[in-house]
Amino acid sequence: MAYDFWYWPTIPGRGEFVRLTLEACGIAYRDCAREDGGEALMADMASHDRGPAFAPPYLSIDGATVSQTANILLYLSERHECGTLGLKSRYWLAQLQLTIMDMVAEAHDVHHPVGVHLYYADQKAEALRRAEGFRDERIPKYLSYFKRALGSEPGNWVAGARWSYADLSLFQLVAGLTYAFPLRMASVGGRFPALMALHDRVAALPELQDYLASDRRLSFNEEGIFRHYPELDAA
Amino acid sequence: MAYDFWYWPTIPGRGEFVRLTLEACGIAYRDCAREDGGEALMADMASHDRGPAFAPPYLSIDGATVSQTANILLYLSERHECGTLGLKSRYWLAQLQLTIMDMVAEAHDVHHPVGVHLYYADQKAEALRRAEGFRDERIPKYLSYFKRALGSEPGNWVAGARWSYADLSLFQLVAGLTYAFPLRMASVGGRFPALMALHDRVAALPELQDYLASDRRLSFNEEGIFRHYPELDAA
Repeated sequence: MAYDFWYWPTIPGRGEFVRLTLEACGIAYRDCAREDGGEALMADMASHDRGPAFAPPYLSIDGATVSQTANILLYLSERHECGTLGLKSRYWLAQLQLTIMDMVAEAHDVHHPVGVHLYYADQKAEALRRAEGFRDERIPKYLSYFKRALGSEPGNWVAGARWSYADLSLFQLVAGLTYAFPLRMASVGGRFPALMALHDRVAALPELQDYLASDRRLSFNEEGIFRHYPELDAA
Repeated sequence: MAYDFWYWPTIPGRGEFVRLTLEACGIAYRDCAREDGGEALMADMASHDRGPAFAPPYLSIDGATVSQTANILLYLSERHECGTLGLKSRYWLAQLQLTIMDMVAEAHDVHHPVGVHLYYADQKAEALRRAEGFRDERIPKYLSYFKRALGSEPGNWVAGARWSYADLSLFQLVAGLTYAFPLRMASVGGRFPALMALHDRVAALPELQDYLASDRRLSFNEEGIFRHYPELDAA
């Protein structure tokens, strides 16, 4: 039976981290809001008396939800035994995924430092200040950590010899950062060759070729989490 | 064998969510940085060639770490079979805990909207703007969700008949919000009686009485995540 997967229909956002794992693992799903629209998403989200979700993305299962990106990936990896397995790697992958999601949240807050209830244009002055710190302090700090994480296990992947959902997520993170901050990523990327190579290895995975070439794969845009506002980027 | 637990020694912060579960479950631990200091924490954090942590809190286990608050709680609850158990509740508790941690991060960013590399005094203008949205939009939105989550299962606790780490964490969240935003919490708290009652039930748990009365329990203060800056609060 296909999962009912729900996420905002016009942006890759947090939903894309889930899609990549669903696709690479060959798990059947219905991308409900892309078929039925954003209002259907809001109606579905309000309908769960049991186990409600705070926000998309989520899977709707037997009337309850499995939500929070990192939690969905934990669920899928355990339930479908896809990618790297094993008790030892479970918590390691979860801590990496949560750190990836922390950086995703920070990348979002660069253009929304005052709050999600306001437009970017209404918080641009604050965004200019926040972007400087994100570029100069946070990008190198996070990428240095992911480099160290990747180097801490033998093999080409974060948990060893086989790719995991955290590898797929690192691909999406690097892609999003490169879209949003091309100048900064061009200037710091050379310091993280293993991370850039990981991005390229995921992009070349046979399991993902059909998906990446399909219209199921959404492009980054300025309604999403990773937005390219040239005024927020610098080398 | 006692766990080596590491967190900044002078603030409750994210570490307190872990301490509450360690204490309520009767799990032995050494609060390393409170014994050895913040420099020992930074040295330990840099020393993990395998499975490094991005930031405290973390447990140091066999040379690797288990980090990210929600992941530590998942690990402890599974490993020690403490609190609510069961496959069905595992992902439900994880998604609640991750939503709690999202609100914790937002509560922190109220006083640090531009970045952690700057002092509060250097981002006070931005903080005043962010605080308004946090008080008016985010606090009601999150508390409404937790109220709904709590009401979605029978029984007094978020996953039914027995307390879980997510209940302990909701206690700490409500306590921190009440410390940081006393005026706002006084004005909205009445709309969430079940959540306030949950806070009081956790505070009265026999398993926590020794701990809460001890000096192992750190007070909120203005170096932490939940800071009481009167200029950021309003009814």
